[in-house]
Amino acid sequence: MARIDGRTHDGLRPVTITRGWLAHAEGSVLVEFGGTKVLCAATVQDNVPRWRKGSGLGWVTAEYAMLPRATNTRGDRESVRGRIGGRTHEISRLIGRSLRACVDFKALGENSVVLDCDVLQADGGTRTAAITGAYVALADAVRWMRSRKMCPGDPLVDSVAAVSVGIVNGSPMLDLCYTEDVAADTDMNVVMTGGGAFVEVQGTAEGTPFDRALLDRLLDLAGGGCAELTRIQKDALA
Amino acid sequence: MARIDGRTHDGLRPVTITRGWLAHAEGSVLVEFGGTKVLCAATVQDNVPRWRKGSGLGWVTAEYAMLPRATNTRGDRESVRGRIGGRTHEISRLIGRSLRACVDFKALGENSVVLDCDVLQADGGTRTAAITGAYVALADAVRWMRSRKMCPGDPLVDSVAAVSVGIVNGSPMLDLCYTEDVAADTDMNVVMTGGGAFVEVQGTAEGTPFDRALLDRLLDLAGGGCAELTRIQKDALA
Amino acid sequence: MARIDGRTHDGLRPVTITRGWLAHAEGSVLVEFGGTKVLCAATVQDNVPRWRKGSGLGWVTAEYAMLPRATNTRGDRESVRGRIGGRTHEISRLIGRSLRACVDFKALGENSVVLDCDVLQADGGTRTAAITGAYVALADAVRWMRSRKMCPGDPLVDSVAAVSVGIVNGSPMLDLCYTEDVAADTDMNVVMTGGGAFVEVQGTAEGTPFDRALLDRLLDLAGGGCAELTRIQKDALA
Amino acid sequence: MARIDGRTHDGLRPVTITRGWLAHAEGSVLVEFGGTKVLCAATVQDNVPRWRKGSGLGWVTAEYAMLPRATNTRGDRESVRGRIGGRTHEISRLIGRSLRACVDFKALGENSVVLDCDVLQADGGTRTAAITGAYVALADAVRWMRSRKMCPGDPLVDSVAAVSVGIVNGSPMLDLCYTEDVAADTDMNVVMTGGGAFVEVQGTAEGTPFDRALLDRLLDLAGGGCAELTRIQKDALA
Amino acid sequence: MARIDGRTHDGLRPVTITRGWLAHAEGSVLVEFGGTKVLCAATVQDNVPRWRKGSGLGWVTAEYAMLPRATNTRGDRESVRGRIGGRTHEISRLIGRSLRACVDFKALGENSVVLDCDVLQADGGTRTAAITGAYVALADAVRWMRSRKMCPGDPLVDSVAAVSVGIVNGSPMLDLCYTEDVAADTDMNVVMTGGGAFVEVQGTAEGTPFDRALLDRLLDLAGGGCAELTRIQKDALA
Amino acid sequence: MARIDGRTHDGLRPVTITRGWLAHAEGSVLVEFGGTKVLCAATVQDNVPRWRKGSGLGWVTAEYAMLPRATNTRGDRESVRGRIGGRTHEISRLIGRSLRACVDFKALGENSVVLDCDVLQADGGTRTAAITGAYVALADAVRWMRSRKMCPGDPLVDSVAAVSVGIVNGSPMLDLCYTEDVAADTDMNVVMTGGGAFVEVQGTAEGTPFDRALLDRLLDLAGGGCAELTRIQKDALA
Repeated sequence: MARIDGRTHDGLRPVTITRGWLAHAEGSVLVEFGGTKVLCAATVQDNVPRWRKGSGLGWVTAEYAMLPRATNTRGDRESVRGRIGGRTHEISRLIGRSLRACVDFKALGENSVVLDCDVLQADGGTRTAAITGAYVALADAVRWMRSRKMCPGDPLVDSVAAVSVGIVNGSPMLDLCYTEDVAADTDMNVVMTGGGAFVEVQGTAEGTPFDRALLDRLLDLAGGGCAELTRIQKDALA
Repeated sequence: MARIDGRTHDGLRPVTITRGWLAHAEGSVLVEFGGTKVLCAATVQDNVPRWRKGSGLGWVTAEYAMLPRATNTRGDRESVRGRIGGRTHEISRLIGRSLRACVDFKALGENSVVLDCDVLQADGGTRTAAITGAYVALADAVRWMRSRKMCPGDPLVDSVAAVSVGIVNGSPMLDLCYTEDVAADTDMNVVMTGGGAFVEVQGTAEGTPFDRALLDRLLDLAGGGCAELTRIQKDALA
Repeated sequence: MARIDGRTHDGLRPVTITRGWLAHAEGSVLVEFGGTKVLCAATVQDNVPRWRKGSGLGWVTAEYAMLPRATNTRGDRESVRGRIGGRTHEISRLIGRSLRACVDFKALGENSVVLDCDVLQADGGTRTAAITGAYVALADAVRWMRSRKMCPGDPLVDSVAAVSVGIVNGSPMLDLCYTEDVAADTDMNVVMTGGGAFVEVQGTAEGTPFDRALLDRLLDLAGGGCAELTRIQKDALA
Repeated sequence: MARIDGRTHDGLRPVTITRGWLAHAEGSVLVEFGGTKVLCAATVQDNVPRWRKGSGLGWVTAEYAMLPRATNTRGDRESVRGRIGGRTHEISRLIGRSLRACVDFKALGENSVVLDCDVLQADGGTRTAAITGAYVALADAVRWMRSRKMCPGDPLVDSVAAVSVGIVNGSPMLDLCYTEDVAADTDMNVVMTGGGAFVEVQGTAEGTPFDRALLDRLLDLAGGGCAELTRIQKDALA
Repeated sequence: MARIDGRTHDGLRPVTITRGWLAHAEGSVLVEFGGTKVLCAATVQDNVPRWRKGSGLGWVTAEYAMLPRATNTRGDRESVRGRIGGRTHEISRLIGRSLRACVDFKALGENSVVLDCDVLQADGGTRTAAITGAYVALADAVRWMRSRKMCPGDPLVDSVAAVSVGIVNGSPMLDLCYTEDVAADTDMNVVMTGGGAFVEVQGTAEGTPFDRALLDRLLDLAGGGCAELTRIQKDALA
Repeated sequence: MARIDGRTHDGLRPVTITRGWLAHAEGSVLVEFGGTKVLCAATVQDNVPRWRKGSGLGWVTAEYAMLPRATNTRGDRESVRGRIGGRTHEISRLIGRSLRACVDFKALGENSVVLDCDVLQADGGTRTAAITGAYVALADAVRWMRSRKMCPGDPLVDSVAAVSVGIVNGSPMLDLCYTEDVAADTDMNVVMTGGGAFVEVQGTAEGTPFDRALLDRLLDLAGGGCAELTRIQKDALA
């Protein structure tokens, strides 16, 4: 079945990763999954949250946000409303957890890296683009730290990438754009390591609940997509 | 491998569902998964949120919270801090989405049901207990509505139950208690319909990322647990 | 004049105090005044607020809240609104002050006890039930501390109980249920020690202002009610 | 026993009520109880809160606040902290309830009066001064309304005044200044109508609980004080 | 052209500065520019904000606010709304910056002065009255500190005063009252030292943008007004 | 005197204006003043704020914000802190006021344009870059509206541009970068129309107050800078 942008069911949108987009950040990436553009900035701090002090271990955390006019209709700023919405919280936590899966905190030493993922333009898959781009920004920040001998070892034990899959009009599809996402019966975000293991699997039946066979097909699709994204990350970092 | 409370790896904790626990609510349940106790109250409202008015469709939503001393160490009240934390938001949204998967909104008519799930005591699996109990409270609220002829049809097209699974010391286990949850390498919450389809699959590698084979074993375990919970829900509603 | 539940004007509703309701708290009580059910949890902390550090004195404080569906109509959560309402603040402060009246802070040492009083179901008199139950939870927490030799002496110099009184249809009545409370011209909450002295007297003319003779009759009624509650507390703790 | 400012135990501090202190408000009073200065502004609005619309009844409400340097040590602004404290809420509610006791809402018609009571300087008894002054500002606002024929009848059925009493060094005393208030074992605020009936009685044992005999003596003192304040209000309004 | 209160285009309204208006503050002034009344209280603190500790330098800051009924229509309290509005923030920052222009922080030592400027009644020019009055309150606070030998030197290197100017019906005018302010095409606030130098120039075209010639005439007017205010400040402090 | 980037005292940094940077917004511009990059998005709404309904007049407003890592050190998100800071408020208001100076609200009809100015990278002059870029985004949004015949007339009566000037090491300089801004004794932001009239003049003596002669030289510099920016805007829109 043809997709609205002519892709095959297992094709990613054009993905570009532009490193060094910001002058000040220790690592920064503009990642694009088709029309989705996320600016990922990595900030290195030579300390850790209070509850981790004295442990010899580092920390990695993330904050996700969307500019008000990233979307088709303008959204209110969360700073103006005075509260962060549930969706923002949820995605920030997801990005942080995902990146921590590839970090050796002992090798990082008592340093922190904060990943700010700000969506400049949204066309579906903002959280998976954010994870995929943030990993590259993190890798750049780690290089920056290692060149200054801040870390006792190599903190990156693997890489991490993420992609969305879903069932649209009964067909499993990879990397949904906004129009597909809205039409999807089931929507799943999968985070995997470069080595091919799962870090997060989050599937939701927006409409009809899905059975095990469909779930298996979605996981297969996601596996292929993450492998391709891993390759793109490697090229970008080369 | 023996579990700390002597269960087999695929055994649920003792589950009890006490209906009619509150005098005022249209449906109310005290659900217990071992030491986890959640009070689920269903409130019927003869209107819908603004964005849904005039659609002829109903709505179901949920709010999750934990009493400060539900846990071993007292937590601050979110009302006192003036903000709802990310975890609370995330679980409230999960419960609402899960219950909506078994509701026919046309048959519900322009009515809403709010499910308040307050954790009185926590010992792991509070979100899965909340979903499992909230479904029964919702069923009671629907009976209350139907006896008053508020609904154009039967809004419940299926039932919904949820259970946690995880990998503890390398072994897949069903329905983790708090001690197991803390020790788990991977933690997964699975929501399924009475008919055996998936509504939500949320798996997270807390430590080592997991491979497809382990994922399959966890999904098998969850399937068995949800089937058993579905039976317990049916008995409770009989 | 007959009351809606058949009580005499000076009769309490059935009062039950169930100790040890929660597994984790150092003291916990489910207190019921008729249909009013309050869960009181005492948390022991081996420190004191900053302004009291180094004084050698302890501290006791309380937080009161109501579950959204404790009442006949669902109320918004204060955590969701992002603010604690005036009534909640006022009652939390009242409970804390009342309990402190029976505590010797020197004998408590530099320890704190926090009393969380969460109303699970409301049918009038939630604040007086909370005080009466919280005293028992506090007594259990003190026993827990003394068995661990945390206190330099016996911190409980007396007991504390509370009851509401009011003028309904011109007649003074003890321990108003919700229907009576709504109809009352004057509503008074009285907190007394086991020894019969006053800790708090809070009377409000909701309708017609009241004269000294009526005030005297209300104080007499409250005295009898508190004495009976003191006896019930003693039995519960025996 | 002599008091620090030489008063007898049943003497008020010098009380002055200056009407028309503000140019814009429909009624405004600077009330002074010794060193305590409260600016009371009455605002007339030709509508009522939403829950009262269509009832034909009016409403009276109050807001109390303290300037940061009203006290000896500067306090943080509640607007800067982003929350109103419990004490502020409690006093605002008390003032509103007290004034409503002398108002016939049918005669007021569907109009509201808001009383803003801002403490410019504090030396004990700010809430009782606020109530006593706010009544006069309310009376002026009512005159303003009646001269414009806004009210179907005369909304003021009585007057309201308030005074504090307490037990200092074992002796009952009237109208405590700050130094006495801090030293008081028991502190009671009493609101009475011009006709001598009670509107509010709020007594708190800060130290030793008090017995019925002391309570009676405090109520006697308060009765005398409120009668004198009623006379001063009448003179101010003449 | 005649002004609504009969002043000439370069005339100030009657200005009065009453020192010592509050009993507790280290410096306090009620400043009146015609119908505008601002209470300025200076609080001395023997410490500095965290970012300045150990520098040997002091700090001066300000907070501006308006009572709800200072204006013709009642405004909501910012404490009740839970947020400080943009205008309040902006003016607080302006007052602080302006006063710091005449302070030698080394001579102040590691002490702070907080200026609370609360508008009791507003009739245009509240920010300029606040700056002019706050300088006098600051001078009194500095005297208080110097009499206690808290400062290593004389912290006041100059004085500061402020006035508004604007173009009303095409004519430049000094010290606009509310009616003129509303009608003004251009509104400018100018802060100057006693020595005649500029500290702040804030001009805004509310309607038609203004040219350089008009700007020059406004600056001339402001220079004359500030010189007159400087003289009034000196008299008040004599 | 040479500047750190080799510019003359009256030279702008390289300015680029890229239109159509965002896919969804009705007008969007990435504006760069040297290392300062601001994304300006214009959103058209076919309604006006409540207080303006029925007037036949439109409205233009703006919101300014900075990404956390726009600066050299990461700043906290205002959404996370739950409050917008004073500086953010002040700049948002300034941008809105400035743009409104070139709009004919009658010709706009009852439509609104919201300008979101998000600083992606900061190197001094973010507010002046925001105003200069936002004007171009507004012009594009107006073209979009006119092509849809939404406006009764041509709402743009002039153009608006802004630049900073300051005194660094005693010399007046145009368009300060961050390093110069920090070192400046006086900092002034000037907003002018394409026709050469002043919309806003905001000058602040950060260090030594400045005299009239210096003020005149700063205004001359700003005039030249704004004229050059007006030319660049015209070219961009051609």
